[in-house]
Amino acid sequence: MTIRLGQNNYGKSRVRLLRVSRGKDQHEIHELTLAIRFEGDFETAHTRGDNSKILPTDTMKNTVYALARKNPVDSAEQFCGVLTDHFLGGNPQAQSVRVHCVEQLWTRIAPGGKPDPHAFVRAGEERRTAVVTATRAGAAIQAGVRNLIALKTTKSAFEGFIRDPYTTLKEDRNRILSTAIRADWLYAAGKIDFNGAWEGIRRTLLETFAAHQSLSLQQTLYDMGEAVLEQFDSIREIRLSMPNKHYNLADLSPFGMTNPGEVFIPTDEPHGLIEATLRRA
Amino acid sequence: MTIRLGQNNYGKSRVRLLRVSRGKDQHEIHELTLAIRFEGDFETAHTRGDNSKILPTDTMKNTVYALARKNPVDSAEQFCGVLTDHFLGGNPQAQSVRVHCVEQLWTRIAPGGKPDPHAFVRAGEERRTAVVTATRAGAAIQAGVRNLIALKTTKSAFEGFIRDPYTTLKEDRNRILSTAIRADWLYAAGKIDFNGAWEGIRRTLLETFAAHQSLSLQQTLYDMGEAVLEQFDSIREIRLSMPNKHYNLADLSPFGMTNPGEVFIPTDEPHGLIEATLRRA
Amino acid sequence: MTIRLGQNNYGKSRVRLLRVSRGKDQHEIHELTLAIRFEGDFETAHTRGDNSKILPTDTMKNTVYALARKNPVDSAEQFCGVLTDHFLGGNPQAQSVRVHCVEQLWTRIAPGGKPDPHAFVRAGEERRTAVVTATRAGAAIQAGVRNLIALKTTKSAFEGFIRDPYTTLKEDRNRILSTAIRADWLYAAGKIDFNGAWEGIRRTLLETFAAHQSLSLQQTLYDMGEAVLEQFDSIREIRLSMPNKHYNLADLSPFGMTNPGEVFIPTDEPHGLIEATLRRA
Amino acid sequence: MTIRLGQNNYGKSRVRLLRVSRGKDQHEIHELTLAIRFEGDFETAHTRGDNSKILPTDTMKNTVYALARKNPVDSAEQFCGVLTDHFLGGNPQAQSVRVHCVEQLWTRIAPGGKPDPHAFVRAGEERRTAVVTATRAGAAIQAGVRNLIALKTTKSAFEGFIRDPYTTLKEDRNRILSTAIRADWLYAAGKIDFNGAWEGIRRTLLETFAAHQSLSLQQTLYDMGEAVLEQFDSIREIRLSMPNKHYNLADLSPFGMTNPGEVFIPTDEPHGLIEATLRRA
Repeated sequence: MTIRLGQNNYGKSRVRLLRVSRGKDQHEIHELTLAIRFEGDFETAHTRGDNSKILPTDTMKNTVYALARKNPVDSAEQFCGVLTDHFLGGNPQAQSVRVHCVEQLWTRIAPGGKPDPHAFVRAGEERRTAVVTATRAGAAIQAGVRNLIALKTTKSAFEGFIRDPYTTLKEDRNRILSTAIRADWLYAAGKIDFNGAWEGIRRTLLETFAAHQSLSLQQTLYDMGEAVLEQFDSIREIRLSMPNKHYNLADLSPFGMTNPGEVFIPTDEPHGLIEATLRRA
Repeated sequence: MTIRLGQNNYGKSRVRLLRVSRGKDQHEIHELTLAIRFEGDFETAHTRGDNSKILPTDTMKNTVYALARKNPVDSAEQFCGVLTDHFLGGNPQAQSVRVHCVEQLWTRIAPGGKPDPHAFVRAGEERRTAVVTATRAGAAIQAGVRNLIALKTTKSAFEGFIRDPYTTLKEDRNRILSTAIRADWLYAAGKIDFNGAWEGIRRTLLETFAAHQSLSLQQTLYDMGEAVLEQFDSIREIRLSMPNKHYNLADLSPFGMTNPGEVFIPTDEPHGLIEATLRRA
Repeated sequence: MTIRLGQNNYGKSRVRLLRVSRGKDQHEIHELTLAIRFEGDFETAHTRGDNSKILPTDTMKNTVYALARKNPVDSAEQFCGVLTDHFLGGNPQAQSVRVHCVEQLWTRIAPGGKPDPHAFVRAGEERRTAVVTATRAGAAIQAGVRNLIALKTTKSAFEGFIRDPYTTLKEDRNRILSTAIRADWLYAAGKIDFNGAWEGIRRTLLETFAAHQSLSLQQTLYDMGEAVLEQFDSIREIRLSMPNKHYNLADLSPFGMTNPGEVFIPTDEPHGLIEATLRRA
Repeated sequence: MTIRLGQNNYGKSRVRLLRVSRGKDQHEIHELTLAIRFEGDFETAHTRGDNSKILPTDTMKNTVYALARKNPVDSAEQFCGVLTDHFLGGNPQAQSVRVHCVEQLWTRIAPGGKPDPHAFVRAGEERRTAVVTATRAGAAIQAGVRNLIALKTTKSAFEGFIRDPYTTLKEDRNRILSTAIRADWLYAAGKIDFNGAWEGIRRTLLETFAAHQSLSLQQTLYDMGEAVLEQFDSIREIRLSMPNKHYNLADLSPFGMTNPGEVFIPTDEPHGLIEATLRRA
């Protein structure tokens, strides 16, 4: 029997970095967790234990810290690009280099409303993400957000669905709608204000979620993706992955009580999951 | 051999509730996870399987939903008190009832700066906590915050410590200081604005952390606790538990580089842990 | 601007099931967490909020419990197939149905070495997985294991790798090797003993890991995949994803001590990650 | 206002260690996560930032590795004692030193039933724990187990409980009983075979759980604790903390089906929680 090596990759994950810029008036910080991944000519490493084409993952990690010293970190996307450029440049055996980044967001502590120049508090539960995948033909730059948790107490219905012998769900004209938004979008080529775009897209996602008269989570998701594509020319496509985090109305009838939308039971499992990609035609 | 039953308790944990108040102008929400615990005369349940004094934990859960319908939820502390009053009143076999509550905080989505009346986004990584422990002699009301993560890039030193044969740490006049604040405080008797107190104490903890010229995390912790006791007369004592979340300066000397406080390696483990209770003398 | 809906899917995740078979001599149990996913003709649900082709995810959940009553659960793979058959049969609007299953494994408590007919203890940290993806043209059956954590204290080297200006790693002839094996394999068509195959492949992975004279984790991974393909004709391809969970030799030289491979510092981050697919040529 | 410093402690948590003993015939390993905690004369560190009595937590961490080199690690309990002896001996400012240890258990990979001398697989989901708390008057040695998950499909009833207006639970003569055992026991003074005792107590807990005709989880817990105290003279007291991990019978009546104890819905929340300490009279 002959065995063939198919798609394969290797690299270093969970490389953590805090980059501080000590400006005259205030300090800026970026806290990133990076994963680096090489694809390329690594067959003999697998089949013969020949490491002559293997850049150690320990070196990948060291490189993150060295390049963070040599370069400013303005955005996760820009720093991922610094790393892919470096790795592709020095490693002819690599055909593709991908750097994936998760950013923990911080906001300034603001005593009396005045932002402190050096002190920060964690900004929220969500994480900002960036992925740069580069070959010698070019680079794809993606960005996104994970675990952006939202909830609305009205403007959400779910009616007119299929009923089969196992259907017990009742039609609902006014349910709680809650989700943990995961969005990943792809930038078009050209000069991008990555930080401005990220802030704007995050805001657009939340505001569209809030405003939408929802007939289903599918429809709300589509509306959110459409709003992003309409408002941000630099975005070529966006993928949204949104769990339906159910808040079940408590059945108080055994105690002789009604429950007019006041008492709910939050649940983590099971949950619906709606996923779709939207792109410009 | 004779066996004796010592301290024992039972109850229901992870009872989740979303309480919605549908006001005319806007909706208010509280999302709570509750744990109820009885202590009392339960020896024969253990030794003989006699359940005649056991209120099922399933009933405890039902009671949370029923009482959330009968009562407004203004604060976690107030609703915990509603539950302890109910359980002590109806269960003579219980000598002590404790209700512990963790609140997931939500803030309004604010399109164009204008808060939406019905739509919310998760407020932060921290959780608000409340514990009411009640006997027929009275109730102790505690509140707190968990996982309030803060970081400062300056105004933190650590010098003049003991050196022994296993000490390698260098004195540091300007290190990163980061922690995940856990605070638990005890209210004095009397009428309390629980929501106002919680917001004020959270702000005081963060602002004191930001302003302090730290000689050690012990000293910063003490300063934070002292500020709370000085500014909030209703607080009798406060316990602070604060990990020292180390951000290690990356050693770039193997690459011929200096590192003037710009590139750090965040770590979760190992971490220091500083804990202390402060109270009025 | 025109927006196009690209790939999209929806379904129910984290549907949990315990299926008990109450045999005369002993009880059998399967504890599964299932995720069901439909792809198909769902465009108007997104664009118009038209739910007329939407089978509610709540119904998907109910169906799991109803079909678990109607059918025995012999293996995760077989039960996933029961579900995909049912959903494809009744839902012409679905072009593809995927059921993903994670099984929590239990082993019998065995007092005095004699397996108890009704009492179980959790078997290990790993999870058994199965995925059936079905269209009207046929079904692909995959299975796997997650988080199968192994470690060896010898027979692992890493030498002869690329050195660049950021390389500090020393060559190592005898390091600790540890990983958390994730394997996913694809079955060929035909009748399969899914439980026997799973047990055999798990054993083959572990025994090959133990026996291999490793020149790198890439080589060990390849050897493990090759052993599975050689020993199990029913497997068409296997993908292995294996972190390199580093155990760093503690540097005791500041204390005037050597460390001949006795004292190590386990770390979760950063970690290497090696991934590859092997298939029959 | 005068503030008083109450109970306070500091130390290093999550110090991870793998200790390898390279015996002639086979290697032995212990993987431990340690937490060290000092209490003592640390008031001026808090109030004045005076670090002259502070042994850095970084030194505590170094000490773990140095002492692991100087000493064999036969058991978690013994190694915790090595550490408390060392720290109390060299730190007159410390009045009490506590070392807490969580052990990740490994078992040998056994190709063809023959245990490999150097290769291991993670043993289970449970963790072995040990805590030594030492003052100059003596040391208390505790040990335990966490997250030992067990389930039985019969021999469990729950009847005859209190009914109040919020009770909906039905009496059940044959329910699923499942729990995640946490046990912590205190050793009497004297020479102890810590490894033998731990294995024996773990086995006793599981076998008693399996055999018991349960009228409630309280009764099962008591029976388990009693069995340990009866069989292990070296144990002075034991505390058991056992969630009631509910497996709810699926209601299939909407589909016209019965459910004779075959199809259950596992849940993590809410859960009951039963806790008790048993000791010799």
